[in-house]
Amino acid sequence: MTLKKKAVTGMKDMLPAEVQLRDYVIALINQTYSKFGFSRIETPCVEHIGNLSSKQGGDNEKLIFKILKRGEKLKLDQAQSEDDLVDTGLRYDLTVPLARFYSNNISELPSVFKALQIANVWRADRPQRGRYRQFMQCDIDILGEASNIAEMELILATTSLLGKLDFKNFTVRINDRKILKAMAAYSGFASEDFDKVFIILDKMDKIGIEGVEKELISEGFARENVDTYLKMFSEITGDIEGVRYCREKLIDVLNDETAEDLERIITRVDAVKEADFKIVFDPTLVRGMSYYTGTIFEIAMDEFGGSVGGGGRYDGMIGKFTGNDVPACGFSIGFERIILLLTERGYEIPGKCEKIAFLIEKDMPDAQLLEVLEEAKNKRDAGFQVSIVVMKKNKKFQKEQLQAEGYEDIKEFFVGV
Amino acid sequence: MTLKKKAVTGMKDMLPAEVQLRDYVIALINQTYSKFGFSRIETPCVEHIGNLSSKQGGDNEKLIFKILKRGEKLKLDQAQSEDDLVDTGLRYDLTVPLARFYSNNISELPSVFKALQIANVWRADRPQRGRYRQFMQCDIDILGEASNIAEMELILATTSLLGKLDFKNFTVRINDRKILKAMAAYSGFASEDFDKVFIILDKMDKIGIEGVEKELISEGFARENVDTYLKMFSEITGDIEGVRYCREKLIDVLNDETAEDLERIITRVDAVKEADFKIVFDPTLVRGMSYYTGTIFEIAMDEFGGSVGGGGRYDGMIGKFTGNDVPACGFSIGFERIILLLTERGYEIPGKCEKIAFLIEKDMPDAQLLEVLEEAKNKRDAGFQVSIVVMKKNKKFQKEQLQAEGYEDIKEFFVGV
Repeated sequence: MTLKKKAVTGMKDMLPAEVQLRDYVIALINQTYSKFGFSRIETPCVEHIGNLSSKQGGDNEKLIFKILKRGEKLKLDQAQSEDDLVDTGLRYDLTVPLARFYSNNISELPSVFKALQIANVWRADRPQRGRYRQFMQCDIDILGEASNIAEMELILATTSLLGKLDFKNFTVRINDRKILKAMAAYSGFASEDFDKVFIILDKMDKIGIEGVEKELISEGFARENVDTYLKMFSEITGDIEGVRYCREKLIDVLNDETAEDLERIITRVDAVKEADFKIVFDPTLVRGMSYYTGTIFEIAMDEFGGSVGGGGRYDGMIGKFTGNDVPACGFSIGFERIILLLTERGYEIPGKCEKIAFLIEKDMPDAQLLEVLEEAKNKRDAGFQVSIVVMKKNKKFQKEQLQAEGYEDIKEFFVGV
Repeated sequence: MTLKKKAVTGMKDMLPAEVQLRDYVIALINQTYSKFGFSRIETPCVEHIGNLSSKQGGDNEKLIFKILKRGEKLKLDQAQSEDDLVDTGLRYDLTVPLARFYSNNISELPSVFKALQIANVWRADRPQRGRYRQFMQCDIDILGEASNIAEMELILATTSLLGKLDFKNFTVRINDRKILKAMAAYSGFASEDFDKVFIILDKMDKIGIEGVEKELISEGFARENVDTYLKMFSEITGDIEGVRYCREKLIDVLNDETAEDLERIITRVDAVKEADFKIVFDPTLVRGMSYYTGTIFEIAMDEFGGSVGGGGRYDGMIGKFTGNDVPACGFSIGFERIILLLTERGYEIPGKCEKIAFLIEKDMPDAQLLEVLEEAKNKRDAGFQVSIVVMKKNKKFQKEQLQAEGYEDIKEFFVGV
């Protein structure tokens, strides 16, 4: 059988330079988030197929890499459908496994648990440029904290990380699912139509307010409702005043606390923020996942022309495992997008080790090779990276390769010299 | 559908304390091996099923987690066997993927390529205490280096790492597949019987020389051959003299260079080694994998009562992908065993950050909370880990939990104080 050289479709091999950048960013994430009290946990990459297919994953559930049952459990001749063949699958996100992890280990976890996850997920998406079927996600979540200190800490930690990677001038957009719903209710939409309305509203960025209007009308929504709805969006400002506008306008359909909480999050984050960013109230922010129950937020970066992270409150999910709801709020950064942006920017990893290559002639006598090994040891102890390599016939080419690998300093050792 | 709380069979959730130790060891591995010129690479966790089933993986090929084909490729009604259902699987080791990686990326890699891999592998082994179906492997490999500088650097790097983790008094056992074969040939065994002989020889540790004798005889091997064979083992010493004995004794069946190389590796490693260990010639060392072609080595640790790492030269494997053999030599450490040993020993991670918990009363007014956030920021900037947590009703229990998490310093903030 011929062996295949290429990686499997949609996944990729990573060469040393790429891994080095990723490892640097991972270490910085770990360091920054641990300053905010987050601890890294790990769950297996393989998850029960029932958990993965529990409608918590939205469209991602269609993209699961499913794993065949083994041994006696696999009854191929009796199998009616795919479901009979598989018992597990590769996780497509880190939120469903986190909810399982929390319910599995609750007796050993503190009452407020701050989890960091940096790990691979898999989605059998259509392969396309820059999007892979195995990719890394990076999530922080606070479980067991009902108050908005959770939102503040999540936003401060994430933006502080982005600041450390020299990202500037980005925007944190924030909204609350309850405001989203209240605005729709106030405008006269029926609650069973909310999802349809939000899917259209979500396109505001791309098609503008006129586009949204057109689509809502063509979906058959009443002109009056659409007008009331869109008038609010044209009047709401992206600051505290916008939140206050909602609070007053929606007084009959929205709990006062929701707007107050949102106002507090915005003002406090703005007051103590470290990185160079704006936090704005954005009533058009929808966030796709159905599990969100409260605040939702997203990071917009002009450089990228899109979101490089997002999250929100999902107080109901853990209850699906334990039977008791646990307040939960999380923020996920787009690790792969950040790596892409840093690479495009030609980001230089600070504080790299100096690299020295010892190029030794073939068949070096024992005593002399010993000296080379000793010298390498001393240099390594002194903090250098030393690679000992035997000279090839085409030494010029070999040296060029070493330089390309970052070995600026190449020392040659000849037999008897 | 009820959701499952437990991790899938044979895999485990990792709590913060365990992940922290693992992350520390991983960082140390990365740092130590990079000093020796190794660079980390990554391959996808998912590999072509054909590559995984190419007889390079030995018994591990029976333990593959196979992944179901998707979409049109999956033809359940036409499937005759498992093989028709799957196109990929989870990798069971890092050596087969490395060989594929090297052949896939050869044009971008230096002529001597030193790879480090730290990554998960999966084996559907029978679950048992301390052995998991997802576990981490850590391999270093030198590709493109035919000379024994590869073996020396691999052994020096690995032992230097173990030394940094305070392992002492361990033993590197070394042998060469060519000596193994020459001894069997010299004793009169037929080459088609070698594997059978070696499987028995491999038990020497457990059943002693008499046990080996008994099994060889009961397998039907000639008394004369067995006597000649075992006499050599009783005469060979674990030092350079042992290697020289082989060189002289096996002069008709063994290339001089093999013994010379082995002698050089032993003497040089012994001369420049940093860690506290012995390197010994062990003619009973077999190493299971059929792909080894030259030197083989293993680390024995009394504390563990077994091997915590091993490797060897496998000059033929890459040729299976590229058609051209490339000299290759690798060393794999038993990452999970090392973590287990460190945990049992109560290993303390050096240089941990100090942790402070800010316990704040509920509904703290804006201005006061701002002060708390500012103070947290200053402490974080000063290098502390600060977690801000809202006081729960059972504050005493909450504080105990925080202390268990490592928050020795707990500062309380009350409304209006």
